[in-house]
Amino acid sequence: MLIVKAGGGTSINMTAIADDLQALVANGQRVLFVHGGAEHTNQIAQALGHPPEFVTSESGITSRRTDRETLEIFLMMYCGKLNKLWVEMLQVRDVNAVGLSGMDGRIVQGRRKDRIRVRRHGRRMVIRDDWTGSVETVDATLLDLLLDGGFLPVITPPALSHQGEAINVDGDRIAAQLAVQYRADQLIYLSDVPGLLRDYPDEESLIATIDRGRVDAFLEVAQGRMKRKVMGAAEALEQGVGKVVFADGRTSTPIRNVLDHAAGTHIG
Amino acid sequence: MLIVKAGGGTSINMTAIADDLQALVANGQRVLFVHGGAEHTNQIAQALGHPPEFVTSESGITSRRTDRETLEIFLMMYCGKLNKLWVEMLQVRDVNAVGLSGMDGRIVQGRRKDRIRVRRHGRRMVIRDDWTGSVETVDATLLDLLLDGGFLPVITPPALSHQGEAINVDGDRIAAQLAVQYRADQLIYLSDVPGLLRDYPDEESLIATIDRGRVDAFLEVAQGRMKRKVMGAAEALEQGVGKVVFADGRTSTPIRNVLDHAAGTHIG
Repeated sequence: MLIVKAGGGTSINMTAIADDLQALVANGQRVLFVHGGAEHTNQIAQALGHPPEFVTSESGITSRRTDRETLEIFLMMYCGKLNKLWVEMLQVRDVNAVGLSGMDGRIVQGRRKDRIRVRRHGRRMVIRDDWTGSVETVDATLLDLLLDGGFLPVITPPALSHQGEAINVDGDRIAAQLAVQYRADQLIYLSDVPGLLRDYPDEESLIATIDRGRVDAFLEVAQGRMKRKVMGAAEALEQGVGKVVFADGRTSTPIRNVLDHAAGTHIG
Repeated sequence: MLIVKAGGGTSINMTAIADDLQALVANGQRVLFVHGGAEHTNQIAQALGHPPEFVTSESGITSRRTDRETLEIFLMMYCGKLNKLWVEMLQVRDVNAVGLSGMDGRIVQGRRKDRIRVRRHGRRMVIRDDWTGSVETVDATLLDLLLDGGFLPVITPPALSHQGEAINVDGDRIAAQLAVQYRADQLIYLSDVPGLLRDYPDEESLIATIDRGRVDAFLEVAQGRMKRKVMGAAEALEQGVGKVVFADGRTSTPIRNVLDHAAGTHIG
């Protein structure tokens, strides 16, 4: 099993990723495809007069402030426009894609953080009407039905809270949990950087391979979101995933490059 | 099999419909749920500075002008916000809903009308960059998998063209084709009127029953979109559907009222 996660940056080469997925599916490869949508969501939120706000938890983790209106904008962009554009791109290529959120069929469940403690303008405060959450479990029942039926699942946040509510969760975490659930041979993250960079943002400083036992040593090199991704990779490897790769989603053959060992940071 | 279609009016009582669906599913009733989103889509299109435009074909049928930007707004509202809000409402009620567009798994396919001849400001013209289409076939493969697996499918436009593109199609037609495919016992349309009215818009003038052989006699009574709905009902009945009901989606028990013969226009 191969899990491919495409980030939500506007520079991601969607057609190239769809081409590569088509080739994999035509070869009989079992694949799950996960996608994000953060940058697109920021744009539409701005256009709708409800610009994105980010909050930093007391433990220093930055996340999107998700009031109910933001959650609905999130649904529009992740589950509406982007999920169905991916499905369309795959269907045009004769891949029988089925677009789903983590809520559908309870694929991804987690805990809603209905109280989040944050620092805002230097002051501590508690936010209550928030719809963010953490990924806790994935249920493969629906995905197995689809894979066995010859469909390609195309999965995106949000997830479902234990009370059945939509919760904004990290798409990278969904991909990692799915990889663990399926003991995937490979988990590939495609984003708008070539991989883990020794001297961020110098793209020439790509770290090509990291031994699974030495991930910790590279944690201090990772910047921003990449730090969380690398930590997630270490966890996924510990839980049985064969290999995790961070690679460039802007090229003309993003997945093929990874499978050819011609691109990305390979951890395994 | 029961097919329920809820219209896309903003006055539809979504929680009441979700309650009724929950009761049906708990009773072991096989159900497919279809929903629209036209009024909501008009609102967001306006907010995004791309207000809806309607065109009238030479044969006199009015439909939404669907340029690519409109199609993407349509995806946001139908497949994003509304589809997932329905899924959330059902999941909160412990119904394992799976939200899908007609594109997913090729459930609904049709022909893209890439050239539409219209009258605009009294002049005839041809529009080429349009993404509307007609419903031609439904494929029950994915839906059967879901129903047999204990999931409730929640289906919304768009459909898929024969080239794999998203096409804006009529949700009422999707519901009718699904009812025919499954030879449904009943096809229920819930909208923001109590049913077919003898003197539109006088809600006291509801026509309670129409014999299936006499539908034609009522066609001239139907106004606007209702005319198309009644024609669709006649077709569905001819093709093996047991009964078609038009009823009020704004009440506190919209589906139950229909099943209790306490509301709506029953044709069959």
